[in-house]
Amino acid sequence: MSFISKDFMLTNGTAEKLYHGHAAKMPIIDYHCHLSPQQIAENIQFRDITQLWLVDGKAGDHYKWRAMRANGVTEDYITGSETSSWEKFEKWADTIQHAMRNPLYHWTHLELSRVFGIDKILKPETAREIFDECNAKLALPEFRGQALIRRFNVDALCTTDDPVDDLRWHKMILDNPFGTKVLPTWRPDKAMAIENPKAYKAYLAALGEASGIEIRSYSDLMDALQVRHDFFASMGCRLSDHGMDKFYAEDYTALEIEAIFKKVLLGFEPGPREVEKFRSAFLYDQAVMDAEAGWTQQYHVGPSRNNNTKMFRDFGPDAGFDSILDHQISVDGHKFFDRLTLAGGLAKTILYCLNPKDFEVMASMAATFNDGSCPGKMQLGAGWWFLDQEDGMRRQMTTVSNLGLFSRFVGMLTDSRSFISYPRHEYFRRIMCDMIGADVESGRLPSSELDFIGQMVEDVSYNNARNFFNF
Amino acid sequence: MSFISKDFMLTNGTAEKLYHGHAAKMPIIDYHCHLSPQQIAENIQFRDITQLWLVDGKAGDHYKWRAMRANGVTEDYITGSETSSWEKFEKWADTIQHAMRNPLYHWTHLELSRVFGIDKILKPETAREIFDECNAKLALPEFRGQALIRRFNVDALCTTDDPVDDLRWHKMILDNPFGTKVLPTWRPDKAMAIENPKAYKAYLAALGEASGIEIRSYSDLMDALQVRHDFFASMGCRLSDHGMDKFYAEDYTALEIEAIFKKVLLGFEPGPREVEKFRSAFLYDQAVMDAEAGWTQQYHVGPSRNNNTKMFRDFGPDAGFDSILDHQISVDGHKFFDRLTLAGGLAKTILYCLNPKDFEVMASMAATFNDGSCPGKMQLGAGWWFLDQEDGMRRQMTTVSNLGLFSRFVGMLTDSRSFISYPRHEYFRRIMCDMIGADVESGRLPSSELDFIGQMVEDVSYNNARNFFNF
Amino acid sequence: MSFISKDFMLTNGTAEKLYHGHAAKMPIIDYHCHLSPQQIAENIQFRDITQLWLVDGKAGDHYKWRAMRANGVTEDYITGSETSSWEKFEKWADTIQHAMRNPLYHWTHLELSRVFGIDKILKPETAREIFDECNAKLALPEFRGQALIRRFNVDALCTTDDPVDDLRWHKMILDNPFGTKVLPTWRPDKAMAIENPKAYKAYLAALGEASGIEIRSYSDLMDALQVRHDFFASMGCRLSDHGMDKFYAEDYTALEIEAIFKKVLLGFEPGPREVEKFRSAFLYDQAVMDAEAGWTQQYHVGPSRNNNTKMFRDFGPDAGFDSILDHQISVDGHKFFDRLTLAGGLAKTILYCLNPKDFEVMASMAATFNDGSCPGKMQLGAGWWFLDQEDGMRRQMTTVSNLGLFSRFVGMLTDSRSFISYPRHEYFRRIMCDMIGADVESGRLPSSELDFIGQMVEDVSYNNARNFFNF
Repeated sequence: MSFISKDFMLTNGTAEKLYHGHAAKMPIIDYHCHLSPQQIAENIQFRDITQLWLVDGKAGDHYKWRAMRANGVTEDYITGSETSSWEKFEKWADTIQHAMRNPLYHWTHLELSRVFGIDKILKPETAREIFDECNAKLALPEFRGQALIRRFNVDALCTTDDPVDDLRWHKMILDNPFGTKVLPTWRPDKAMAIENPKAYKAYLAALGEASGIEIRSYSDLMDALQVRHDFFASMGCRLSDHGMDKFYAEDYTALEIEAIFKKVLLGFEPGPREVEKFRSAFLYDQAVMDAEAGWTQQYHVGPSRNNNTKMFRDFGPDAGFDSILDHQISVDGHKFFDRLTLAGGLAKTILYCLNPKDFEVMASMAATFNDGSCPGKMQLGAGWWFLDQEDGMRRQMTTVSNLGLFSRFVGMLTDSRSFISYPRHEYFRRIMCDMIGADVESGRLPSSELDFIGQMVEDVSYNNARNFFNF
Repeated sequence: MSFISKDFMLTNGTAEKLYHGHAAKMPIIDYHCHLSPQQIAENIQFRDITQLWLVDGKAGDHYKWRAMRANGVTEDYITGSETSSWEKFEKWADTIQHAMRNPLYHWTHLELSRVFGIDKILKPETAREIFDECNAKLALPEFRGQALIRRFNVDALCTTDDPVDDLRWHKMILDNPFGTKVLPTWRPDKAMAIENPKAYKAYLAALGEASGIEIRSYSDLMDALQVRHDFFASMGCRLSDHGMDKFYAEDYTALEIEAIFKKVLLGFEPGPREVEKFRSAFLYDQAVMDAEAGWTQQYHVGPSRNNNTKMFRDFGPDAGFDSILDHQISVDGHKFFDRLTLAGGLAKTILYCLNPKDFEVMASMAATFNDGSCPGKMQLGAGWWFLDQEDGMRRQMTTVSNLGLFSRFVGMLTDSRSFISYPRHEYFRRIMCDMIGADVESGRLPSSELDFIGQMVEDVSYNNARNFFNF
Repeated sequence: MSFISKDFMLTNGTAEKLYHGHAAKMPIIDYHCHLSPQQIAENIQFRDITQLWLVDGKAGDHYKWRAMRANGVTEDYITGSETSSWEKFEKWADTIQHAMRNPLYHWTHLELSRVFGIDKILKPETAREIFDECNAKLALPEFRGQALIRRFNVDALCTTDDPVDDLRWHKMILDNPFGTKVLPTWRPDKAMAIENPKAYKAYLAALGEASGIEIRSYSDLMDALQVRHDFFASMGCRLSDHGMDKFYAEDYTALEIEAIFKKVLLGFEPGPREVEKFRSAFLYDQAVMDAEAGWTQQYHVGPSRNNNTKMFRDFGPDAGFDSILDHQISVDGHKFFDRLTLAGGLAKTILYCLNPKDFEVMASMAATFNDGSCPGKMQLGAGWWFLDQEDGMRRQMTTVSNLGLFSRFVGMLTDSRSFISYPRHEYFRRIMCDMIGADVESGRLPSSELDFIGQMVEDVSYNNARNFFNF
């Protein structure tokens, strides 16, 4: 029997019924990912499985890179340019065998099965034949980027984009539709990054050009962002996203913020308290912009980025040297959303944490600001990054269930740079069905209500996201 | 088969034996709740199931209110005065169906079954008949407040009371006993709340009147509290309780505390460090008072209260806008109990946390101050509020087991404002029996010791609380 | 059937195959313990089971002492000198019965079975016969210290030693080998403890004598430590260990550190920030020393020690009054290892946490500094102290699996003062096999790969430690 069997991860009969009868058939809305719009628009053809899976120029899958380093593989075979695709793949085949119990082990075999129809276990003994078979297939037109996406019944996907971006590739896709909506997401992290005045001023120049507004003040900044926000909306954007170490809710005045902004424009580094104040103002004003536009805002809280300076110098960000922070988030988080509720308007909101200690705080924070204006208006998002694995998913779903309404959860997303990571939706749905099936079989949920429960599974798989985001 | 079946939550044979043979028969000691002594004394008759379950004037069940808001129900149907009991109940019926996997789903159906003998699933289709049947029953004398309590074999219950309270309703119950002891609990939160001088001075005036001591100094305050403490003791009180964001163990001198107190009496707001010092002194002195009286002290640590200012202005506290803090508690907690152990005397102590990250810290803190003077003298309390659900109970019981002695645990309490929340004791006992039964069946506990294990189940259900609190 | 049966803790067929076919046969490398080298060298004969299990002069098993205090046993029967061995044992027999679900319950019965061949349950009714049988056996030569160790197929064990220690007992064991390597571990906690100038200066005098270097400066201190480090290496030491409340990564200059050192030499207490700086420098310099020597460094982070001052005055450290801290560790931890990676060289590293909230932070921290120079170069260590129980082990192994490579984990250690705690390795292996067996049987791991999985079990049991530490 193959590893990725029909009932993979389904350990009870009700789970099987729920998955095959309800979850499997639903389309995918991948409302947060990091796919390259250019690669989608250009309908990329991958050179080989190494480019698709491991390394593509200076970029690549940093989840896999970390595993390889932990397995004792040197940089030559990970990010090095002197080794061949095959040599890298061979090291990966040994690493994945040693990654049993890591989510990569399941993802890898799901991808082999669902994309390439390969049901072999990847290990040193099978590496060559799998390498060759994948590469042969990747040369075919039905393995180009758009076809890979279509293969997974993806209704819509949201990329992650800077306000300065001209969205030309999104436009090209709009003009040449291939069956999956590709929408931008507003991610203004750089517009908040005043810590480095030089880089910040360069960014402001680009933003000024993109918006047609010369930025001489914080107020200009917001005007310029509003112009771009409107443009993003016109291109179908309905979501914003913020990457943050923690929440910010310092007290500040408009005058203070303008003074800090001017100081940075003059090239001076702001002090820590000035940064706190600036971020508090910026995030608040951005949230108001989202509320007025009827968007959903996302907060991704908790990464510790680029911790390994030596490797950062060589490889830059997103190379596998990020980690998890343990800041306190409760007081500032509640204060931030309280301010919005009081004065600015609260957009629909999804909170994601990278440190599992924050699951309960975030879920109860979300529940505190629900106002009945729509189901699940503010909620805890799916297990993310380091928590995007079976244990993390179960903890996230258990927390949402206990402290909120699981039935209103907008469900899974990939957060991925890969064209073939969609089996993670399948993985999530299987785990969800296994969990709910076990509830039914142990009498924790009434078997008389299987119709409603099946509907709930379909909702979390797809309908909730469709109704919530309004793409 | 009905949802709340004979073996609800019991998934193995030993669990069934332990529950039906040992746990089910034990009376209840509900040593911490928020029932209204007046409603008990007056033997309240509920107008309808909406009053009993959802909303009673401005008060009501904020657990359910949160769920309704998360389900997209507007305030009209939650706290509004323009909608009928039936209209509110109809919204609740839709919400509870969407609350599958939330503890409310189990509590609601346990209450329907145990109080009203209704074994239907509550959902829009059954809402009207359940509404009518409950209301018909609530009109009967055997559904008045005291009978509802008696129905659950409650030996004793402890309300939560302010030192100023004259305990007139407790007196009335003492004079007209109905089979369940109703004892007061000393909760002096307001006597510590110096942050708001105006409200605090009004409180001191009331306390002065109640105690017959004019309060001009901190030392007067303690004298007045001692008078009331003695009075509470004479009315059967054996427990104190403190609601706290964190522990307090600042260094201070008696002179400093008197100076802070005087500043507040003069109407000046104390600074943050003054508040820290005052709370450190107040909590210490209260703990000494409890130790001298032979009481048990409870610390409920971790809520973030009234986070939604907009809703607080409309509805006041306890309306569903509280959440979970993530302060550090280890250093100050240990310092506080160390001081008591060294100088003041340590009363029996129960520690409750609202953030599950604190379970292990609190359990190991408790174990550090046990002195052998009685079994389980200091211990981690039951899963509380947001943690009062299956997952939270299992984590609490696992932590107590690993870091203390489960067999000495004083067990469950409702912490509830409701006359019909006692099935939560049944729920706890079923989960406990399921857990221990699984230990036996998997060989983690020896099946040869079933007599002792059955005794342990009875102890945690009832005997430990009886022996510990000495009501 | 006896409680400690052939398949104790093994709840599925694959687990049984993995344990009996792979794990059970592997020798033990106990790379971190607190055995007394003198007692090993002198081949201690225990007076009775009370000395072996409970109390030996002023020392003893503080895990058991805590349980006894929680059970309401007074100090007379724990640390008191007026009660007999039998009277203490009798109290212990009652306590262990009340400790069901605590790891002591499993450890105790494993030890009775594996060391004494006793399969009875310890409880008041069996206490006397078990006491007598154990004592009779302890009088035999095959129950002396070295034979107890040999009984468990221990290849090597590492004690915990101060740099000042002359390692005379290690030398005696080297000269009179008994089949188990006994190696020292470098634990320089006292060399960092500048908070108490008087005690520190006494320590420096001893270190000066041991190293032959008069210590007048921080630089002298490092020279003296280097001499001892070299000596430890010559005696087979390959591991260092640091007990810490948190990580330290303050900015400092060499001049500042020398100034702080001199201040302490003059008898002045350093301020909190000076302590921070000193620890940051000391730990960095020690880490460089370890990297240069090719050792493995261990960081044990998170205990709150000696919290009960009253009992500390009577009994000193390690008497059961320690607890768990909840400091933030992410920022300083990453900064510390980043510095080493950039400039000083990073030794192989194992991170242990006492607060389970830190599991994910530490595992992701470790993964961030792997450089491919060897498999699992930096990794999360086994569940430790309060977390050394089934739940803690499963959480640790799950975290390693999700955020690192379980197959590269160096596995279990006892961290114990006891000659008969080796069954904890058996306990760990049974739980590991149960977990992995369940993965296979539920289809989470492919049953076709049982050969590799069996190899992985052998690796984590023994081979990984052998290859990693290079004793």
